[in-house]
This record gives sequence, C-alpha cells and structure tokens, in this order.
Amino acid sequence: MIENPYYTQKNHGPYEIYNLGDFKLEDGGIIPDCKLAYVTFGELNETKDNAILILTWYGGTNKIMETYIGSENALNPDKYFIIIINQIGNGLSSSPHNTPAPMNMGNFPKVRIADDVRAQHKLLTEKFAIEELALVAGASMGAQQTYEWAVRFPDMVKRAAPIAGTAKNTPHNCLYTDTLMEAITSDPNWNNGNYRSSAEVVNGLNRHAKIWGLMGCSTEFYKQEAWRLFGVDSLEQFISDFLQAIYKVRDPNALLCMGWKWQHSDVSRNTNGNLKAAFERVKAKVYVMPIDEDMFFPPKDCEEEQKMIPNSELRVIRSICGHYALFGAEGRNYMHQINNHLNELLSSQV
Amino acid sequence: MIENPYYTQKNHGPYEIYNLGDFKLEDGGIIPDCKLAYVTFGELNETKDNAILILTWYGGTNKIMETYIGSENALNPDKYFIIIINQIGNGLSSSPHNTPAPMNMGNFPKVRIADDVRAQHKLLTEKFAIEELALVAGASMGAQQTYEWAVRFPDMVKRAAPIAGTAKNTPHNCLYTDTLMEAITSDPNWNNGNYRSSAEVVNGLNRHAKIWGLMGCSTEFYKQEAWRLFGVDSLEQFISDFLQAIYKVRDPNALLCMGWKWQHSDVSRNTNGNLKAAFERVKAKVYVMPIDEDMFFPPKDCEEEQKMIPNSELRVIRSICGHYALFGAEGRNYMHQINNHLNELLSSQV
Repeated sequence: MIENPYYTQKNHGPYEIYNLGDFKLEDGGIIPDCKLAYVTFGELNETKDNAILILTWYGGTNKIMETYIGSENALNPDKYFIIIINQIGNGLSSSPHNTPAPMNMGNFPKVRIADDVRAQHKLLTEKFAIEELALVAGASMGAQQTYEWAVRFPDMVKRAAPIAGTAKNTPHNCLYTDTLMEAITSDPNWNNGNYRSSAEVVNGLNRHAKIWGLMGCSTEFYKQEAWRLFGVDSLEQFISDFLQAIYKVRDPNALLCMGWKWQHSDVSRNTNGNLKAAFERVKAKVYVMPIDEDMFFPPKDCEEEQKMIPNSELRVIRSICGHYALFGAEGRNYMHQINNHLNELLSSQV
Repeated sequence: MIENPYYTQKNHGPYEIYNLGDFKLEDGGIIPDCKLAYVTFGELNETKDNAILILTWYGGTNKIMETYIGSENALNPDKYFIIIINQIGNGLSSSPHNTPAPMNMGNFPKVRIADDVRAQHKLLTEKFAIEELALVAGASMGAQQTYEWAVRFPDMVKRAAPIAGTAKNTPHNCLYTDTLMEAITSDPNWNNGNYRSSAEVVNGLNRHAKIWGLMGCSTEFYKQEAWRLFGVDSLEQFISDFLQAIYKVRDPNALLCMGWKWQHSDVSRNTNGNLKAAFERVKAKVYVMPIDEDMFFPPKDCEEEQKMIPNSELRVIRSICGHYALFGAEGRNYMHQINNHLNELLSSQV
C-alpha cells in the first residue's frame, strides 16, 4: 500500500465508504474487502423514485462531478437524491495503491466496466434499497458505465444520459488507450507497477498527459488558443499546469486499471457480442450526448450507436474544448447545454 | 557513423549524390560536405521548362515517390524531366548516422525546411542549370517543402501541389510531433542519440509507430477494417507488420531530425511571421490537396491557408486511409484522384 496524499478526504471529501466484502470480478480475480467511495446529495423520497446515479470518468472522482450538481442545475438536490459513486480503481474506491498485499500494486486484478456496475448495483440495492433510477448519467468512462447500467439493469434505469462516451469502445479508441498506457508502462521507474510513489513515474505520467492533450483537444482548440479558458497563458502552460498537473498526482497503477477497463468497455458482452441485441434490451429513455469537437468519442461514433437504441435521441454538445469540455472551463456555455438536455430528459415521461 | 543496412543503393537506388560542400544552416549549424541523394526520370528539354521537382515525406525516400511516376500517371517521364530529391536527414541525404564525427548522431545540427529548399535550389541551379519548375509537388513534409519553394523562389515555381500538408505547422500538429519524438527519446537506449544500431531503440521506435497509427488513420479506417487494404489480417498486424515495420528499420536520429524540422515548418519565417504576406509572395498556380480523413493535416487547416494563396484551388482527396492514403494502398481510387488533379494543374496556363 502507498500513502498517496492526493487521495484524501481533505481533497475529495467528505465521502462515505461502502464495503462489498470480497468482490469477484468477471475476469476471475477477486478484490478483497472491495470498497466503493460515494457521496450523496438531497433526500431519497418515500417512494424511492427520485434517485439519480452519477458515475465518474478516467482519473476523475466525485469531486469534479459535484460541479454538475446544484439547485441551479438539472441535477438538483432539492428535487433528487443524487449519488455519485467512484469507479473501482480511481484511487478512492478500491484501487491498486490502497488494496492490501498480495492483490496490491502491479498485482491488482483486471476490472471491467461491468464489475463497476455490478458493484454499484449492490451498493444501491443493499444500502439504500433503491430499485429504480430516475436517471443514470456520466461522461467519458462515466458514459461507458451508464450504457452498461441501461443494458444490464433495463428495468431499473428509467433514463440515461451517456455524455462523450460509447457503449462499445471503437478500435481507434482502443489504440488511443494503448498509447496512453504505454506512455506510463514504458517508464522504467514504473517497474511493473512496483514503485514507491507516483513521483517516481513522473516522466511516464507527463508523456501520458501530453498524449491526452493530443486527442483531448482539437486543432481548432489550439488554433483559437482556447486553452485560455483554462486560465493559462500558453500551450506549454496548458500542458504543464493543466494536463500534467492533473495526472502526475494520480497513481500510475490506478490510471492503468482505468485505462484497461476503458479500452475493453463493451456492452455487447451481455449478449454474446451482438451489439444490436444489447441495445434492444434498453428500456430507458436515452439522450446520447457527444461533444462536437471530441476526437476519440467523436459524434459520428456515438451516433452510430444511438441509431441502434430504441428510445433515444442524439443531443450534440457544442464546445471548442473537445473532450475537455467536461471540466466545465467554458462555464455557462457548456453547463447551459448540459442542463437543457438533462432537464428535458428528466421531465420526459417514461 | 553507423552502417544501417536499410539505407543502401540496393534498397533505394540507383540514386545519385550531389555534394554541396559545407552547408550553412539557418539555425547556425553546418553540415560538412552536405550531400543530397536524388534520382531523375525523363529528359530535360532544351528550353529547360519541363522540370518537375518531387519532395519526400517523413521517413520516406525517393523510392516511395517513384510509385507516383510513370507514363500512365500525371508525373509522366515521357513528357517531363522529373527529379526527386531526398530531404536532409532522411537517411540517404546527409543525416545523423552517415555524417562524420563530430557532427554525427546526437550532435547533428537542427535543420529547417528552408535549409532543405535552399540546398535543393543549389542542386537544381548548379548541377542542372534549371531556372524554372513546371511543378513542385510533395506530400506531408513534402508539402511543407513545396510551400517553402513557392514562397522562397516565387519566380521559379510555376505550379505547386502541396498534398496533405500545411505551410505553417499548426499548434496541434506541433503537439503531435512532440509526442512522436518523445516516444523515441524516452527510450533509455536512445541514449541522447548515441546508440549503436536502430535495433537498440526498437521499443521507442515501436511506440512511435503506434502513435502514428493513432493519428495517421481515423476511427472510420479502423471501424471499416480498412487496414485490409494494406494486406494485413488484423489491427494488431497493421501496427506490427505495417507501421512498426516501416519505422523500426529507420534511424532514430534521422526520424528526430525530420520530426523537429516538420514541427518547426513555417513559411512565414520569410516575412517576419506574417503568414498572409508570405502567401502573397506566391506566383505559382497552387492546388491545395488535403485528404478528407487526415487527422493531423485536416482539410480545415489546409483550407484556411488555401484561402490566403492568390492563385489557388482546394482539391480534397477522398480516402478512408487518412494520411496513410499517401502510400497508395487504395490503388486506382487514390492515384486516379491524384492524377486528375495534377493533370489539370499541369495543363493550366501560368
């Protein structure tokens, strides 16, 4: 186990922990005393039909998702009981660095999106006795989990809003995650996952962050110097003070756990590889919400899936910030779109 | 000096060598006994107005460009005197691995696109007494050199065909080349450019090749399994047997020399940073020819430049293969478009 000062209640809390006990994974491994870190906002009503589940993206935690929540937003805790569950391997829930030996660090087992969703389902049903979700939403890897929820538990999910993500990872996106992971694992200090601190792997983490910059934002973003929206004065500073700053404090094995999970995301594992059959299971009303300048979950890839989902609509988010629009640097322009779509979705009869 | 078995007359020849003597570079360095490797096809006519100059791309040599030449093509040696000049640092012309100490390997000086063009100008004027070029054409880094020719020697260039490249590298493309170069330089065996053979740097070269796969071909390419056009049976084989096979035989320092040159390409260096003023110098008839699925020289970036070029037209090449369309794997579909545009350009009065 490593004491990583980034993953603390001070930085990310207050958050709660739910212990699932030994949790068996789809690929055969076990996470001993598997823990999910989560936060809730608002009150669960008596009929337990006002719950909204929010899921986290690669490297993200409940903290960034909390910026989507507020009485001025669609995700309004005055009306809804909102729960954000940190994905396994994100550093707060069970992860390589916080799991006891011998399953720690480089020995942490492979986790799938489906494992996350099964674990989240246990938390919701066992701890809160929730049997219905008014909405499941998430962006990027959060969208992958959202799709898995809608396919795996179709009777439970009334509405779904996968933002900037797909239900089955495309081959191109698989190649992308490969280059991200190789940037870390090629650092000799990564040492097969057995380092003493993230700081030792800073070179690999910094290369990884730069590849994020390559695919996370488009040529228009850089040409228009839209990095100014992130409070920096140059492209170089955007790389060092925003992108590299994000990732170098995180645990390399945590990023690799999430990277592998992202790469292998595929709802058609529920239906013997038949993607259309997987989507036909979905009973939720679904708003598919890609970002127009996104380079690795581009609208075209998202739209091809949307067309296979029975009760769905394509709602494209406009943002010069590409995938990094998710961080909300554009302020109102971005949140206004998110809120409009989610408000409409939440008010739709299902 | 390293004996690299890839860079031989057997693999790339027959080619000729022109010795420029000590060649002073824009950034202050000198290449001692600077050599340009070149090939010619057809006959220079008496009025010396039937010369076509063809330039090479990153990692490419005269050999691949020869596939564009033939009596069935627009680049017809029955009508034109066609000369292909290998760019400095490509492994055949003066390059880090074939230059004598102390300017060899990691000490090879920084070379700019403008240095290439000045060196090529000396070869054409001194050796062949050519004062007029019916056409200058090249793809990718060859397009960068083409633009530099049109801006630097406007009275000499009658027609120009920059294919899949820009006159000034975009910030996003600069970031791309950064990730490519870092993939190599992060290999501990690169050793600041002082290795004993390319094989020692194979890990870095292979990572570099994979990042090429990420940006060289689009999500549609991979989704449609268009790698089959390259004679392989899987994405993995496309990476290993096509992309990694291309780059791992090349000299790492040669790739870095070209990568830096590509990254810093900018015709506005001729006009104190004023790109519009640079384009206003151009007297050639120019066909700007981006490839529709190109991810790092996308049509939008090329079109923005084209609009600034006085006597120019945008001619978009359609290809599922993205930037790698340049290798001609699509056969007639691709060459037919190239030939049509070049035939029209060559027959236009200037």
